[in-house]
Amino acid sequence: MVSKHEAAEAVREAKVRTGITWAQLAEAVGKPLAWTTAALLGQHPMEKDDATTAAALLELGDDVAMAFQLQPSRGALESAVPVDPTIYRLYEVVQVYGPTIKELIHEQCGDGIMSAINFRLDVRRVPDPAGDRVVITLDGKYLPYQW
Amino acid sequence: MVSKHEAAEAVREAKVRTGITWAQLAEAVGKPLAWTTAALLGQHPMEKDDATTAAALLELGDDVAMAFQLQPSRGALESAVPVDPTIYRLYEVVQVYGPTIKELIHEQCGDGIMSAINFRLDVRRVPDPAGDRVVITLDGKYLPYQW
Amino acid sequence: MVSKHEAAEAVREAKVRTGITWAQLAEAVGKPLAWTTAALLGQHPMEKDDATTAAALLELGDDVAMAFQLQPSRGALESAVPVDPTIYRLYEVVQVYGPTIKELIHEQCGDGIMSAINFRLDVRRVPDPAGDRVVITLDGKYLPYQW
Amino acid sequence: MVSKHEAAEAVREAKVRTGITWAQLAEAVGKPLAWTTAALLGQHPMEKDDATTAAALLELGDDVAMAFQLQPSRGALESAVPVDPTIYRLYEVVQVYGPTIKELIHEQCGDGIMSAINFRLDVRRVPDPAGDRVVITLDGKYLPYQW
Amino acid sequence: MVSKHEAAEAVREAKVRTGITWAQLAEAVGKPLAWTTAALLGQHPMEKDDATTAAALLELGDDVAMAFQLQPSRGALESAVPVDPTIYRLYEVVQVYGPTIKELIHEQCGDGIMSAINFRLDVRRVPDPAGDRVVITLDGKYLPYQW
Amino acid sequence: MVSKHEAAEAVREAKVRTGITWAQLAEAVGKPLAWTTAALLGQHPMEKDDATTAAALLELGDDVAMAFQLQPSRGALESAVPVDPTIYRLYEVVQVYGPTIKELIHEQCGDGIMSAINFRLDVRRVPDPAGDRVVITLDGKYLPYQW
Amino acid sequence: MVSKHEAAEAVREAKVRTGITWAQLAEAVGKPLAWTTAALLGQHPMEKDDATTAAALLELGDDVAMAFQLQPSRGALESAVPVDPTIYRLYEVVQVYGPTIKELIHEQCGDGIMSAINFRLDVRRVPDPAGDRVVITLDGKYLPYQW
Amino acid sequence: MVSKHEAAEAVREAKVRTGITWAQLAEAVGKPLAWTTAALLGQHPMEKDDATTAAALLELGDDVAMAFQLQPSRGALESAVPVDPTIYRLYEVVQVYGPTIKELIHEQCGDGIMSAINFRLDVRRVPDPAGDRVVITLDGKYLPYQW
Amino acid sequence: MVSKHEAAEAVREAKVRTGITWAQLAEAVGKPLAWTTAALLGQHPMEKDDATTAAALLELGDDVAMAFQLQPSRGALESAVPVDPTIYRLYEVVQVYGPTIKELIHEQCGDGIMSAINFRLDVRRVPDPAGDRVVITLDGKYLPYQW
Amino acid sequence: MVSKHEAAEAVREAKVRTGITWAQLAEAVGKPLAWTTAALLGQHPMEKDDATTAAALLELGDDVAMAFQLQPSRGALESAVPVDPTIYRLYEVVQVYGPTIKELIHEQCGDGIMSAINFRLDVRRVPDPAGDRVVITLDGKYLPYQW
Repeated sequence: MVSKHEAAEAVREAKVRTGITWAQLAEAVGKPLAWTTAALLGQHPMEKDDATTAAALLELGDDVAMAFQLQPSRGALESAVPVDPTIYRLYEVVQVYGPTIKELIHEQCGDGIMSAINFRLDVRRVPDPAGDRVVITLDGKYLPYQW
Repeated sequence: MVSKHEAAEAVREAKVRTGITWAQLAEAVGKPLAWTTAALLGQHPMEKDDATTAAALLELGDDVAMAFQLQPSRGALESAVPVDPTIYRLYEVVQVYGPTIKELIHEQCGDGIMSAINFRLDVRRVPDPAGDRVVITLDGKYLPYQW
Repeated sequence: MVSKHEAAEAVREAKVRTGITWAQLAEAVGKPLAWTTAALLGQHPMEKDDATTAAALLELGDDVAMAFQLQPSRGALESAVPVDPTIYRLYEVVQVYGPTIKELIHEQCGDGIMSAINFRLDVRRVPDPAGDRVVITLDGKYLPYQW
Repeated sequence: MVSKHEAAEAVREAKVRTGITWAQLAEAVGKPLAWTTAALLGQHPMEKDDATTAAALLELGDDVAMAFQLQPSRGALESAVPVDPTIYRLYEVVQVYGPTIKELIHEQCGDGIMSAINFRLDVRRVPDPAGDRVVITLDGKYLPYQW
Repeated sequence: MVSKHEAAEAVREAKVRTGITWAQLAEAVGKPLAWTTAALLGQHPMEKDDATTAAALLELGDDVAMAFQLQPSRGALESAVPVDPTIYRLYEVVQVYGPTIKELIHEQCGDGIMSAINFRLDVRRVPDPAGDRVVITLDGKYLPYQW
Repeated sequence: MVSKHEAAEAVREAKVRTGITWAQLAEAVGKPLAWTTAALLGQHPMEKDDATTAAALLELGDDVAMAFQLQPSRGALESAVPVDPTIYRLYEVVQVYGPTIKELIHEQCGDGIMSAINFRLDVRRVPDPAGDRVVITLDGKYLPYQW
Repeated sequence: MVSKHEAAEAVREAKVRTGITWAQLAEAVGKPLAWTTAALLGQHPMEKDDATTAAALLELGDDVAMAFQLQPSRGALESAVPVDPTIYRLYEVVQVYGPTIKELIHEQCGDGIMSAINFRLDVRRVPDPAGDRVVITLDGKYLPYQW
Repeated sequence: MVSKHEAAEAVREAKVRTGITWAQLAEAVGKPLAWTTAALLGQHPMEKDDATTAAALLELGDDVAMAFQLQPSRGALESAVPVDPTIYRLYEVVQVYGPTIKELIHEQCGDGIMSAINFRLDVRRVPDPAGDRVVITLDGKYLPYQW
Repeated sequence: MVSKHEAAEAVREAKVRTGITWAQLAEAVGKPLAWTTAALLGQHPMEKDDATTAAALLELGDDVAMAFQLQPSRGALESAVPVDPTIYRLYEVVQVYGPTIKELIHEQCGDGIMSAINFRLDVRRVPDPAGDRVVITLDGKYLPYQW
Repeated sequence: MVSKHEAAEAVREAKVRTGITWAQLAEAVGKPLAWTTAALLGQHPMEKDDATTAAALLELGDDVAMAFQLQPSRGALESAVPVDPTIYRLYEVVQVYGPTIKELIHEQCGDGIMSAINFRLDVRRVPDPAGDRVVITLDGKYLPYQW
């Protein structure tokens, strides 16, 4: 049997071999781009049909399609503080702006959090004459502390 | 002389005492909301006029206004992994979706990063019948690896 | 001004000095026992009336009553792994039974979590002929992963 | 020979393959649900008959049944602070409410601990019009410090 | 008010100043030597009479006597791995012989632990022609895993 | 060639397979119980005859017998703070009573340590009407600081 | 398929086997020396022609040439603080001179950073009568904090 | 007496108060810019005349001038991995390019290191039409491994 | 009362103020150089006469002399891995040559250790035409593992 | 191809199999004892003739002889703080005497370090009527801080 971690590795390899993009995979599966990417990287369980569709597109076997459907044990960083520069910048945002975001959530909503479970994510390239921009949208339900 | 860290503590206290909001501070200073909040929490240096305006509004002294203008040593988490739940959820997003974001930046832009320096941040409450949402926008310049 | 951490220390000291119990404090405030205890230990913000009531009972000043009302930065362990044996046993439960609880949540509810925000806690002594028992109830809303 | 860790992996895989639930396994073995789950995940030794019954139901071999009977080296987190969000919420409860629980044990019972050895655990889904809840009961013998 | 940690420091200082020994303190209090030492170092709460007796003998004030009676937050190492050589040797014993002790407890008693709560400790110097020995006895109730 | 770590694993497996106890192994080898257990777990080198005797009793091959004779690289905990509850209790004793033991060694012997090299260990079950006890004796030569 | 990490190992081995130098590889590829070395060690993706040229020179197969073209997950230290003395000296420079470099960047350029993305590196041996010197040039675009 | 750390803080404050630059300080002292900065930040001992000159320029007292002359205990990062973004980029360079630099030192010089003791550092802003650059030169004596 | 740590700081300051050297202190006390240095830095207890002599020479008070006589809690590094370069080189020796030293102790002496308790240390500058050398001699009693 | 780490393991095994000592290996190679041991444990590169001689004596193949010649990535501890007692004692010396050695280097030589690169090491058993001693000599070139 193939683990979700091994399935994620297989996906990365198959993408290089087949030239299929995340966007094509998301379109085939009919799910949002970031959700599909996260799912194929092992962070969400997929439904059977979606798993089969994605595996077929990537020319991967039934055992990988099965792994796509497993309940994940989430969390994907190789260490508490990520070392890859592209991912580190996200951690840096938490280091520098974490308390700012906390203050603004509390001022606008009250004593609570942005859910990371009832949550969606978008990553887009936005053209800009001064150099294109990466715009990441974190969109989670507000959950008030409630006893 | 007052350190930026002490000034940030003074700001938090003064906000409770005076009832001034981050939004009012940002409006008085004439800068974006999240930038102003981050600056008053010690993560950005302020120009003299802005520093004086904010200090006056918060009924804080000249030494605090001076601290607002100092070059910061950035980074505000109390430990490598934050423990406050509101801030932890941001770390959890990096843990669960970090590699997804990396893949999508590379697919859409190439081999590079979203800058955390040429960067702006927005935090908004968005009404939603199924429960209001917190929407955080991370908007940084795309920087390609370039030798 | 008094920080929430200093206020929590003041509460512990005042309880010894005055002999007031957590149960009496909770009754006076009219809130659940565990919530009141957590709030006075600095993990929840209190409303003005409740804060004043508790401070008066504990013979503490207005500055402490003010601290009770502040928005907390939550998290109270002195290190990532707690060393006090009474608290360590809770960590041991997570170490030994964490994956068991995860499996049972997924089997009974699906892919999601028990919220620690929409959450209540109860601690009770239960008489037992073979030795009384401590029964801790963690009761949080089920939050399904939802994009 | 199969280690308890490998046996736990085999159980997870066999559950997907056979569709057997933890509840069915517990019923077949005739032991409490959470105990059975923990035991099959390698945290408790099983008696021979129970081990054989569970292995048969999961269509696993004698070597796995033997592994179920071994004395475990307990502890199942992949790191000191768990990263999977479902398990992290339990750690967050210890971070936010650990000292509260300690205070209430001491107030209700005296100077001692809730045993994590003479201990039972229950996880239940409780219907609630405002959204179903996960209720986890930690029930351990009170052990007073005793020289 | 004096914390238990400050009280422990005061005890160490007072012992040097007055020349009183742990043995004399234990005799005056009428409790076992190791228990009395641990209690005065802040690891156990003392009863009022014992606290007063010890404080008087050490020429310490009422605030210290009060601190002796407080419920402790236990744990006294300055870091996860102790650096003082006298204490490190105990950690080394756990590193080298921990699994051995675990095996022998399981062989002689079954699946359980030696309690560190229902527990007593003795430290004695034992004359030996080849060089005197330090003999430390750890004596805890056997607690079987019991659901 | 078999490493000492692999040999220790082989011993644990062979004990289950053959039903041989640590006590029987110690008797066959003619060495103290705890020493024999530690040696077979890879923490001491054995002499050729003893290694051969133990391997034969456990029905293990010459390569394992050879491994028993190798010089060990000692230390057997899987992390700086052990997670298995049976072993953690020993660490907890060091956390709670380490400074107490240090004080008593210094009072009874002077400025020095209990050796963990010139050292013997005993683990015994002691019947007790209030519940049997585990008694662990740490017996090491006193080594004074000596320039 | 070969991972970038395995490809880097293959390069190190092939260099010993073939006697090819980093300088020869850089010349064949027509890219700067340090960039080529970093790329072949798995820290940059290579274009197809360059990858094929390098693999051919090193007598490595198509799968390695493919690995050279993959998007890397960057970061190459075996631990947060490097232990190899040649690499540790670079960390020591950051420890001793990091704040100095920060001050001088701020004094000469303003509030910003030296980019490590729009960045080039040079390592040269410089003859010196008092002993030759290693001169490392870090040359990155200045990025001002810009909202 | 003033510690070197306190003296460094005093320097940072005095620079803001007096408007003196690192360049002016270096010129007054007659030493290289980076050396002077590092020394005043507490990483090098200064000679008496230089210390007095710098203190006078900064309008600081004799006790600070004395601190400038003390032997330092070097190392200035607040944690093993720096969190300030300007300093973190230097750590990132070690993470991404450390092994590359090691390979090139070995290829050009043999088995040895770049000294961080017999070492000089330069930080310069270099104009560039595509955006000015920060050029940092690390220049250390090559030290071959030599028995 | 003065702690040993504060006394060590007072010694460092007094040495600068008085110009007294470690060698002069050792000669006055009549003890070996390294022992005296370590003792005054708080790593050994001193006898009353020696403590008084040293304090007088350094023009320090009776409270410091008293601190010199206290039993130390040993260990002086600011973090597990030292950051000061002069001390780090000693750690580097352990990293690079630790297993070598272990092998040679075992080959020459058997299964045991070099004591760090029955131990003396010497640090000398040795003239050498190719550059003077620092020669550090670690001289500890061989302690065989002995049950 | 064999890595230096695998070669070191092969050496340890071959020494047991052949009975060859480190002293015999050093004599055959004609290099100092400690250097030869460190080199064969993978911490130094060997010249071809020496590598071949050592491999032949140990009855190891050409691939191991090749590994002996590779440039090492140095550092051999399994964790930042070593757990094997023989090696830990060296770390303890750094913990207890590190600042002492630093002070004496500075007093005797000035502001600099003992090189761990231009460095030699000796380990000897020295007979002593009170028990033989292990004498370890660390002998490194003094390197003054020099800009």
